[in-house]
Amino acid sequence: MTHVNTTAESIATATPTPVTVLGLGDMGRSLARAFLAAGHPTTVWNRSPEKGEDVVALGGVRAASAEEAVLASGLVVVCLVDYDASDAVLEPLAGALEGRVLVNLTSDTPARARQAAAWAEKHSLSYLDGAIMVPVDVVGSADALVFHAGDRAAFAAYEPVLKALGAPATYLGEDHGLSAAYDMAVLDFFYGAMGGLVHAFALARAEGIDGASLAPYLTTIANILPPIAAYTATDIDSRTYTGEGANLTMMAASVDHILHTAKDRGLDVSQLAGLKSVTDRAIARGHGPESWSSIVEVIAAGR
Amino acid sequence: MTHVNTTAESIATATPTPVTVLGLGDMGRSLARAFLAAGHPTTVWNRSPEKGEDVVALGGVRAASAEEAVLASGLVVVCLVDYDASDAVLEPLAGALEGRVLVNLTSDTPARARQAAAWAEKHSLSYLDGAIMVPVDVVGSADALVFHAGDRAAFAAYEPVLKALGAPATYLGEDHGLSAAYDMAVLDFFYGAMGGLVHAFALARAEGIDGASLAPYLTTIANILPPIAAYTATDIDSRTYTGEGANLTMMAASVDHILHTAKDRGLDVSQLAGLKSVTDRAIARGHGPESWSSIVEVIAAGR
Ligand SMILES: NC(=O)c1ccc[n+]([C@@H]2O[C@H](COP(=O)([O-])OP(=O)(O)OC[C@H]3O[C@@H](n4cnc5c(N)ncnc54)[C@H](OP(=O)(O)O)[C@@H]3O)[C@@H](O)[C@H]2O)c1
Ligand SMILES: NC(=O)c1ccc[n+]([C@@H]2O[C@H](COP(=O)([O-])OP(=O)(O)OC[C@H]3O[C@@H](n4cnc5c(N)ncnc54)[C@H](OP(=O)(O)O)[C@@H]3O)[C@@H](O)[C@H]2O)c1
Repeated sequence: MTHVNTTAESIATATPTPVTVLGLGDMGRSLARAFLAAGHPTTVWNRSPEKGEDVVALGGVRAASAEEAVLASGLVVVCLVDYDASDAVLEPLAGALEGRVLVNLTSDTPARARQAAAWAEKHSLSYLDGAIMVPVDVVGSADALVFHAGDRAAFAAYEPVLKALGAPATYLGEDHGLSAAYDMAVLDFFYGAMGGLVHAFALARAEGIDGASLAPYLTTIANILPPIAAYTATDIDSRTYTGEGANLTMMAASVDHILHTAKDRGLDVSQLAGLKSVTDRAIARGHGPESWSSIVEVIAAGR
Repeated sequence: MTHVNTTAESIATATPTPVTVLGLGDMGRSLARAFLAAGHPTTVWNRSPEKGEDVVALGGVRAASAEEAVLASGLVVVCLVDYDASDAVLEPLAGALEGRVLVNLTSDTPARARQAAAWAEKHSLSYLDGAIMVPVDVVGSADALVFHAGDRAAFAAYEPVLKALGAPATYLGEDHGLSAAYDMAVLDFFYGAMGGLVHAFALARAEGIDGASLAPYLTTIANILPPIAAYTATDIDSRTYTGEGANLTMMAASVDHILHTAKDRGLDVSQLAGLKSVTDRAIARGHGPESWSSIVEVIAAGR
């Protein structure tokens, strides 16, 4: 088993290595810029050829076709909107990809990632499936979390180059579905927060409070989430929901207050109503005196 | 207009001042402990008399009735589960509260806060309506955000004492509904995140990933939320949703991937399905190439 080294130093010491980026959407362009900034000769391709002038201006070489782009480098990174798109682009490229390392940083379900890995295996391709967990402007910094899973030797070989996207590059294991599984779980938290975030601004506006006045207070909430995540993990792993410091009945009452305030102001409450249906069922099942994390039992039970 | 001074110094220099806490749930006990820690003689009362032995052990004095508790101090703080509870407790105490300052730190809707203020006004009581935005273990620290609104002179008079709960104490304005309005908006963000958080752990568990493995990666998300909140505020205040760096169509595709992954694993998807119905409508209205914040238009339009 290859030892996976993730010291920050390797970025600085990475030998300039040709890399190809397929896809020049917001994220593809950001990846290409990060490779160029780290000194790697970067070849790019996008279905719609008008995108990526910024990347070309920084020294990126635009290939005339996806196949030409693949043939330019030993490391091929693909980042498209979903696996319908990446399958469509990659399917005709199996021959050209032979002997290279393919890293798919498109986000989709674990099932789609494992299907893509099976396709790569059928064609004896060296395949890593990954996921990018940060916005475009964070890519390339020490705060950029990028998951990788699959071919361990390929990761070890290209880790110094992949760290141009963010350090350390995170390798999760040989199951190609792992990046997508972590991706989906992390995004589940992210999109819960992102839905609540915009709803919070809508509610504030309806109460006569502008976004600039509200935003600073949301930082207090963001700051308490990591310790809450840590003890929620402990509750959930041990399946004990003791509710020290805050009980579900009290917290469900708050959800209900938000829902009423939003309804009174004529706002859409789809996401909140969905959450309330979960807390209602959890309380009906006797979890009221326990912690908020006890709602996991209702979520796991399905509808 | 009284000048409101919020320097950290005032906490240290606050003269020991008798304070009463009505309600010894998780939060009421935490408030009482913070007043005691700051050296204020603290009288407490709770409907169920068995609660609060920890507070008594620290020097809190248990009153035999709510009225006796109120008569012990010039500053009376109430913190119960909701305004049905605080109205029930306060209604018979109008006479006893005369000449004192009442601070209601119970969380509920702006409408209920304004009703309570009208009741206080009818009885010529000096009334502040507040809200606590942090968990019990953060109360009393410099990170504790506590909102206050209403009687400005009362706030100025008792600010040095109220800062025992968290510094600086935040005064929002004379409209008694303001604390609840900010409370509901901030909690809207918090509970979106808290629903997503537990769902994330449920999804991870279904994919064979334990909570301890997932939790550290959620910190990356918590850390990117404050800058996202800041630019979302700008988008929403200006009603321009340019989508630099990430577009709604791409993000809605991710919501759909999470939803499919969760459904495949037999999980409840109420909150996610609610969010997806919002993104679906936003895309149908032409917001796909814009930013995520454009969903505010659908939320504001109601169902
Ligand atoms: N942007 C972010 O903040 C962010 C953050 C983390 C992860 N991600 C992930 O990164 C991936 C890309 O996101 P993005 O922001 O770059 O999206 P985007 O700006 O919408 O770009 C989508 C890309 O997919 C291509 N595409 C779509 N359908 C295609 C098809 N059938 N055949 C070939 N190409 C196709 C587009 O090509 P055309 O230009 O020809 O349409 C474009 O290059 C997604 O999986 C996303 O979840 C993005
Ligand atoms: N805990 C937190 O982390 C937290 C954080 C921020 C804000 N808050 C807010 O703080 C407030 C209190 O929360 P908590 O955590 O202390 O809740 P809690 O532990 O559930 O305590 C509820 C309190 O309300 C009292 N109560 C309920 N119904 C009553 C009635 N009809 N008459 C008299 N008393 C009644 C209870 O008395 P009994 O003991 O007799 O039942 C108890 O003192 C809530 O508005 C909550 O939203 C809490």
